[in-house]
Amino acid sequence: MTTIATTTALTLGEIEALARETLLANGCDEANAKAIANTIVRAERDGSASHGLFRLPGYVKSMKSGKVNGAASPVIEHKLAAVLSVDGGNGYAPYTLECALPELAKAAKTTGIAVMRLYNSYHFAALWPEVEYLAEQNLVGIACTCFKPSVAPAGATKAFFGTNPLAFAWPRPDSTPVVFDMATSRLAKGDVMLAARDGHDLPDGTGLGPDGQPSNDPNEVLKGVLLPFGGYKGSAISMMVELLSAALTGDQFSYEAQAQDNNDGGPARGGELIIAISPELVAGEGWDSHANGFFDEMGALEGVRLPGARRHVNRQDEGTREVNSALIETVKGLSA
Amino acid sequence: MTTIATTTALTLGEIEALARETLLANGCDEANAKAIANTIVRAERDGSASHGLFRLPGYVKSMKSGKVNGAASPVIEHKLAAVLSVDGGNGYAPYTLECALPELAKAAKTTGIAVMRLYNSYHFAALWPEVEYLAEQNLVGIACTCFKPSVAPAGATKAFFGTNPLAFAWPRPDSTPVVFDMATSRLAKGDVMLAARDGHDLPDGTGLGPDGQPSNDPNEVLKGVLLPFGGYKGSAISMMVELLSAALTGDQFSYEAQAQDNNDGGPARGGELIIAISPELVAGEGWDSHANGFFDEMGALEGVRLPGARRHVNRQDEGTREVNSALIETVKGLSA
Repeated sequence: MTTIATTTALTLGEIEALARETLLANGCDEANAKAIANTIVRAERDGSASHGLFRLPGYVKSMKSGKVNGAASPVIEHKLAAVLSVDGGNGYAPYTLECALPELAKAAKTTGIAVMRLYNSYHFAALWPEVEYLAEQNLVGIACTCFKPSVAPAGATKAFFGTNPLAFAWPRPDSTPVVFDMATSRLAKGDVMLAARDGHDLPDGTGLGPDGQPSNDPNEVLKGVLLPFGGYKGSAISMMVELLSAALTGDQFSYEAQAQDNNDGGPARGGELIIAISPELVAGEGWDSHANGFFDEMGALEGVRLPGARRHVNRQDEGTREVNSALIETVKGLSA
Repeated sequence: MTTIATTTALTLGEIEALARETLLANGCDEANAKAIANTIVRAERDGSASHGLFRLPGYVKSMKSGKVNGAASPVIEHKLAAVLSVDGGNGYAPYTLECALPELAKAAKTTGIAVMRLYNSYHFAALWPEVEYLAEQNLVGIACTCFKPSVAPAGATKAFFGTNPLAFAWPRPDSTPVVFDMATSRLAKGDVMLAARDGHDLPDGTGLGPDGQPSNDPNEVLKGVLLPFGGYKGSAISMMVELLSAALTGDQFSYEAQAQDNNDGGPARGGELIIAISPELVAGEGWDSHANGFFDEMGALEGVRLPGARRHVNRQDEGTREVNSALIETVKGLSA
C-alpha cells in the first residue's frame, strides 16, 4: 500500500518558532529550547527530514516521562590539556555541545589533537552539526554515538548494535567543509520509519524481518532487525563506534541502554566521543592547498559528489520547507 | 581455469631467516631487515599470506630500482606533547614504526590522546602490528594509510582511492586485543592477486573490468578497478582515510603517489596516521570491565566472532606454515 503524504510549506523561522515554543511548553528552559530548535531547523533547512520536526514528539515524551531534564546545564571538566570530560547533567546534547564545543576547539588548537567524552546525556539529533562546527574552526572533526540496539552484527540475527552514526568533517577555509554523517546500518532507523509512514519499500540488505529472513517491508524490518552497511566490514566499524562512544565515555553501550531505558519514545541515555585535530599543527603549512587539490581531482570524476555537498546546496535556499502536515498537527497538539 | 597451488611446509624460523637474509642480500641493513622480516613472519604466522613472503619480491624491487633506502633511519620530532612528526628517511615503515611507536605510546599515556604523522616512508605491510602494539600498551590504536589508486569512489568507474586500509585495536589487559585491519575496498588488492594466481572467482561487488562493467574474474578486475566496500558509505570511509593519511601527514594522496611512483613493483611513497588513546585517562577507572561486558555479550551471539580472534588462534600454532612453493623459489632467486 502506498500513501501520499500531504505537506505544508513553513518558513525556517516558523519551523524554529514551532520547535522552540513546543519545547518551552513541555519542560525546556530557554537555553535548551533554543539549542534543540536550532538543531531541528538546521536539519529541515538542509533537507534531512528524519532529524527535523519528526524528532520533536520524542523530545517531549522523554521530558514528560521524567527521564530527561529539559533545563540541564553541563559540567565541563578539563581533565588534561587534550582531554575534556563533559557531564551532560541528564539533559539533551544540543545545549551541552553549544557550551562544550568551543572548549574542545580551543584545546585542539593548542594541543594539536584533543578528545571530548560526553556522558550522562541524551542525543537525538544528527552528528554533522558538531563536526561542522569544528571544521568551521579549521579543525578536523570526528564524532560518534551509539543508541539502543536495532542492528545485528554481521553473522547474527539479533539486534545488538545501535545504528551507531559516525561523522567526519574536513575543514576548507575558503569553502564549505566536506562532511559525512552516516548511520553504520545500511539505512538509518529514521529513514526506515519514514519509509513505513510513506509506504515505501526498502532497498535490499536493509534488514531482516522478525523471522530472521531478509525483508524489504519497513514494517517488518521495524519489528525485526537492521543490518550493518557493507557486511562484516561495516559491522566492525559499528563495533568501533560502540567502543569509542560507550567504553571511552564511560556511558552505556547500546545493549545497556536497552536494559535501562524506559522506552518513552524519546532518546536513550548515551555517550558521545568527539575528536578534534588541527591540520595546521599536525601537517603544518600548506595543508589546505594540498587537500584542495585532492577535492578538485575527486570532484572532477564523473558520477562523484563530495560528501555533504548536497546539504550545503540545500541550505542556500532561504525559502520555505515542505513539512508533513500530519506531523505539524501532532507537534501543535503537544502544547495543547 | 583452476590451478592447484603446491605448497611447502616452513617453520616460522625458516620463514624469518629466508626473509631477513633476502633483504640483507638486497640492500637492507640489519635493523631494517630484522624489522621487515618480523612483519613478514608475523603475517605468515597469523595466516595472512597476502602480507607474508608474497611481499618480499616487491621490497627487493624497490631497493634495486633505487627508490627506497633499505638502510634508512627515522627522525622523530616531538612537535607538541600530543603530536609526533616522524620522517621515515625514505625507508620502509617497519623499522621506523619499531622506533616511533614506543614514543607515541609514551605520549598518549601522558596526554590521554596523541597522534603520529609518518611521512617520507614506504608501507607495504598490514596495519594490525602497529595498532596491536598500542593495545598491548593498554591504549586504543587507530591507523590508516593510502596507496596508489585502484578503487573507484562510489558512482565513478575510474580508480582514484587506494585500497586504503583502516585498522583499530581495543586493549584487553587480561586477554588478546580486539583488532580489525581492513581494506576499505570490497577486497584487498593482495587477495585479488592471490585469487588470480590460484584461479579463484571473486565475490560480487569486488570490482569492475576494464570496460567499467562488474566482473568476477580477478584478471579482469586487476585490469579494471576495485570498488569500495558498502557502496557510498564505504566510499566515504575511504575518502576519510585519504585525508587522514595524506592531508594530515603532508605526504602523497593515492593519486599523487600514482603520478610520482616509478612502478618498480614495490610500494609507493605514502603517509600513515596513527592515533593512540588512553581509556584510563579518558574514561577513567572501570573502563576494562565495562568493555569486557560488551565483548562477552557480543561474543555470545550466535554467528558472531570478535574481530581478530581467528588471527590470535592461528598464532597459537608454533608449527610449520604452508607456503606457495613457486613463491619460495622466486624469493630464493632474489639472492642468487
